[in-house]
Amino acid sequence: MKLQDYFAEKKVLVENHMKTLIDSYEDIPKISEAMNYSLMAGGKRLRPILALMTCELFEGNAEDVLPFACAIEMIHTYSLIHDDLPAMDNDDYRRGKPTSHKIFGEGFAILAGDALLNKAFEVMLEAVMKNPSEGRIKAAAYISKASGVEGMIGGQCIDLYYENREADIEILNKMHEKKTGALIKAPLIAGAFIAGAAEDDIIRIEEFGQLIGMAFQISDDILDVEGSLDKLGKNTGSDANNNKSTFVSLYGLDKSKELAKSTVEQAQNIISLYGNRGLLLKELSNYIIERDV
Amino acid sequence: MKLQDYFAEKKVLVENHMKTLIDSYEDIPKISEAMNYSLMAGGKRLRPILALMTCELFEGNAEDVLPFACAIEMIHTYSLIHDDLPAMDNDDYRRGKPTSHKIFGEGFAILAGDALLNKAFEVMLEAVMKNPSEGRIKAAAYISKASGVEGMIGGQCIDLYYENREADIEILNKMHEKKTGALIKAPLIAGAFIAGAAEDDIIRIEEFGQLIGMAFQISDDILDVEGSLDKLGKNTGSDANNNKSTFVSLYGLDKSKELAKSTVEQAQNIISLYGNRGLLLKELSNYIIERDV
Repeated sequence: MKLQDYFAEKKVLVENHMKTLIDSYEDIPKISEAMNYSLMAGGKRLRPILALMTCELFEGNAEDVLPFACAIEMIHTYSLIHDDLPAMDNDDYRRGKPTSHKIFGEGFAILAGDALLNKAFEVMLEAVMKNPSEGRIKAAAYISKASGVEGMIGGQCIDLYYENREADIEILNKMHEKKTGALIKAPLIAGAFIAGAAEDDIIRIEEFGQLIGMAFQISDDILDVEGSLDKLGKNTGSDANNNKSTFVSLYGLDKSKELAKSTVEQAQNIISLYGNRGLLLKELSNYIIERDV
Repeated sequence: MKLQDYFAEKKVLVENHMKTLIDSYEDIPKISEAMNYSLMAGGKRLRPILALMTCELFEGNAEDVLPFACAIEMIHTYSLIHDDLPAMDNDDYRRGKPTSHKIFGEGFAILAGDALLNKAFEVMLEAVMKNPSEGRIKAAAYISKASGVEGMIGGQCIDLYYENREADIEILNKMHEKKTGALIKAPLIAGAFIAGAAEDDIIRIEEFGQLIGMAFQISDDILDVEGSLDKLGKNTGSDANNNKSTFVSLYGLDKSKELAKSTVEQAQNIISLYGNRGLLLKELSNYIIERDV
């Protein structure tokens, strides 16, 4: 199957499953609407699809990984809602639509983020209750670390702290590894755990995830300079406006592109071991740096 | 043992365990400080102590319940940090100290809250990894529901929505049941699950928790009118300033006090079944409405 078709098919699968996870909560004002507004804002569903890919690579069952895949998308979505708040990045647009606080007010945007983070754990723990397999428990625990202060939240802290401070390349790398890399790596590992992959495979997938997470961030910085509001659905150049250090501001555009390319090549070398079974993940690695959104 | 001595002893146990759960995260700016600032601000540790009490009631092991007890305290603390934000209740003081956003700024207060919520699940999932017993899994899943949109967060949504709207008694009750009651009930149930309590006991404890949760909120509203900044460590009368409906504004002071008393009596009737083993929980029910903070 071509990557494009795979994405189209799995995006529907993931979105349909997510719809079953958020009730209408009729006795609670505004929250269902606010949660769905951001969750259904039409992302690529890259993270859940990564979980489905490694689960298939190790011959697991897609049904089993789906709750965890959707949980990661909820965590990713909450992080965007909180990141966009006036006290954080202060962004008015996300994916071509006004950000959550612009629609629902700051208070409800904070609560919608909290609700999505919490819901992610509700969903995973429900799946663990149904079948307390080692793979499911390990996946939930791994995701919890990846989204926490040692992972994504830690990256947001570094990002916020250095908004008006000079950050060197070491700090920049650490920030991205945590803020973006952790939630790229987590679905890959979660899918592998749930499929019952061997320890060697987990180590390999972790390394692969590390590399494509970095490539993803470099290409994000490039897109922030080269993209347009039309394609990205958000104001470009916002990093520069916020005085943020980026790969592009540190290395320049050409060197950043080279770095992205060589990082993806390293990732592809790792996945080569799996021969044909790894073709989709290889294709995906190219997509990471060739995408225009 | 007297309730006062029990509280003093278990408070130390809980706080010492919490200290082991938050690292210094030396490569992440400010976050450890912000998490600890609110977590170690000297609360009564009522919620973790409730978990320890029911765990003991059903002859469970305190060591087993401790991670879950501390996780609930982290969830409670994060909810206070986010509740105090300018976009929510806009409070400058909590427990006699400036609120998180006053010290660390709004961005870091949001992140410290997120980090504590996430950490709570990290801690519980680590405990589940170590020993995936049915009781632990059920406790974690129950806590996740109680803190989510059907529980505490849902209560915050109702609270925020009705800040400048007239709320009737039905809405007020629902708000309190979710915002405060859910996280009073959850530790009681978690302790019972982990101790392996029978289904009948769980139902009884749930009812008991429902009642003391309500009594707790009524007495909170009374304290908001009668307490002083000195004792409560926060500005009193803040509900009235925020135009909030409370039990006192709806029923008056005397009827609210009567209601609190009769609710506690109902709770004590339930726990009477356990004879001497339930004495501490009975004493605690009195404390709930007799406390001055």
